[in-house]
Amino acid sequence: MSLPFDTVRWDNGAIRIIDQTRLPASLEYLRLTNVEDLAKAIETLAVRGAPAIGIAAAYGMALAAYHASPSHRNEAARMARERLARTRPTAVNLFAALDRQAGVCDTVGEDRLPEALLREADRMLEEDLETGRRIGAAGQSVLPDRRPVRVLTHCNAGGLATGGWGTALAPIYAAHARGIELDVWADETRPLWQGRRLTAWELAHAGIPVRLLVDGAAASALTRRTVDLVIVGADRIAANGDTANKIGTLGVALAAHAAGVPFYVAAPATTFDFETADGSGIPVEERSETEVLGDAPAGVRGWNPAFDVTPHRLITGWITEAGVLRPPFDALRGSESKAS
Amino acid sequence: MSLPFDTVRWDNGAIRIIDQTRLPASLEYLRLTNVEDLAKAIETLAVRGAPAIGIAAAYGMALAAYHASPSHRNEAARMARERLARTRPTAVNLFAALDRQAGVCDTVGEDRLPEALLREADRMLEEDLETGRRIGAAGQSVLPDRRPVRVLTHCNAGGLATGGWGTALAPIYAAHARGIELDVWADETRPLWQGRRLTAWELAHAGIPVRLLVDGAAASALTRRTVDLVIVGADRIAANGDTANKIGTLGVALAAHAAGVPFYVAAPATTFDFETADGSGIPVEERSETEVLGDAPAGVRGWNPAFDVTPHRLITGWITEAGVLRPPFDALRGSESKAS
Repeated sequence: MSLPFDTVRWDNGAIRIIDQTRLPASLEYLRLTNVEDLAKAIETLAVRGAPAIGIAAAYGMALAAYHASPSHRNEAARMARERLARTRPTAVNLFAALDRQAGVCDTVGEDRLPEALLREADRMLEEDLETGRRIGAAGQSVLPDRRPVRVLTHCNAGGLATGGWGTALAPIYAAHARGIELDVWADETRPLWQGRRLTAWELAHAGIPVRLLVDGAAASALTRRTVDLVIVGADRIAANGDTANKIGTLGVALAAHAAGVPFYVAAPATTFDFETADGSGIPVEERSETEVLGDAPAGVRGWNPAFDVTPHRLITGWITEAGVLRPPFDALRGSESKAS
Repeated sequence: MSLPFDTVRWDNGAIRIIDQTRLPASLEYLRLTNVEDLAKAIETLAVRGAPAIGIAAAYGMALAAYHASPSHRNEAARMARERLARTRPTAVNLFAALDRQAGVCDTVGEDRLPEALLREADRMLEEDLETGRRIGAAGQSVLPDRRPVRVLTHCNAGGLATGGWGTALAPIYAAHARGIELDVWADETRPLWQGRRLTAWELAHAGIPVRLLVDGAAASALTRRTVDLVIVGADRIAANGDTANKIGTLGVALAAHAAGVPFYVAAPATTFDFETADGSGIPVEERSETEVLGDAPAGVRGWNPAFDVTPHRLITGWITEAGVLRPPFDALRGSESKAS
């Protein structure tokens, strides 16, 4: 099975991303040649999804060094790091990627810096693809025997949210490649429609049957047992397993728990934040109320948190590149210290 | 406090309704002069909300008799009943209102039928207004002492859903009239935006502070305890208290229960269906998938149940014109047998 599309790529002195604000109407690419444009692309969600943001940011530091004068490469990369760290606060992958590139800045001289940063970003992208394959393989063990396998997901944790295969959708792509019949239920995911615009688009693109439901209908689908399991992605996972993900995930988890439907989080090691003990320590981005107000009458206010935090007790397991895990995630604590 | 608007009224040989599909952009009225136009107005949700549908249907049978030739008035009213009964399956008020008018057809001669049906429909509207006042008064006992009182609601169970004061919003209007500071959190209510288009509009119209949130954010508001209680309406309540209401209500109830936030249903006696033992016997309307597909790519399907059923164990109390009740609702079983 080949990659369905290129979410983030280095393109000859620029970063090329799919402009996800244009999906599903059209598949268009943005060619970003400076850090400010990349930062805006992250803030406006032209590129989004925790792993994809991390990779894009890593290329962003390379981009800054690439275009700087020889004696200012280190400074340019560090300024890029500062700007990119201010884009979105919740996804920990962003900070992990920037820290990793800062390590390159600490150890490599100005003359070799652009190439070193670019090589490190390429490595992150390759690791992400390999991680997606491993998450996909690990996820096969949680699928039921019945056909079709009916999976509900929320938001988009697919190829568009990563360098390639996705996290929550990786087990779905892997099952599809094995010839397993699937029936994916995708929450539309208000306010920014990632389910309707992105998950539906990429699954339909891959020939996988998908049906949309409003976010409010997920509890009904779970209670009626029209789905077998839930798999979602994550933006940050605290040491105890409390998981920040797109607003609406918590409600799905509560309904799955009440209905006895297994609820899995799929995420790479880079999404785990062992420095944060539990969900209360995860900063939740509040976005503009204009995203929810629409045609509401004047004088009406809005409340628009981008994420919620699902307590670990509602989560059946965490599907990672090191297998399906439970807290304290010992298999990952090793890889984490290796990476940092 | 005066009525903010006229949702359904008899208007000199026609039924005048607010065209709720045009809100909040403009307040426009439809003047319906035949039963088919009324049936379509109900099916397209130009008039919606269980009590308002019941009143509109009662006027619909009067309308049919009013315009029929003298010897066909009874037949015309009965044909109207059949057509209107096919509009929407879940709201029990519709069938209760049609049955009540059928009783008029059984006992009144053709010559006096239009006037008798019209008088009965007027009586239902007056009862609805009085019921709204009583639900509003009964609801005061469930409000906390803190100010502002922070109430979360889902969909629209306000004046626009009834003849006047509403059900879930009746305690809010009554508290506002008493000078109690309020902070209403309104779920936008996908797929048809009743929260954003209707609840936000009518509360803003009445000068009551309201903020919108996406349906997926309700679980987060409840878990963070940024609201004190939930009040929703109902389309049908089974004998054991299981309650059908707009899709998304069940998820709110599960989250409120998990967070320990009180969850109330406000509804008139006509919404209780003591013939149906529990929620499994309530028919749930499935609406067209086009309401959820939007700009989704070709080949994507939709799942669009209009309602869900909240089990009685998740509901703190039922706010009715006979007070705040719990199953088996003895105070209402008397009024029900009186009405039928």
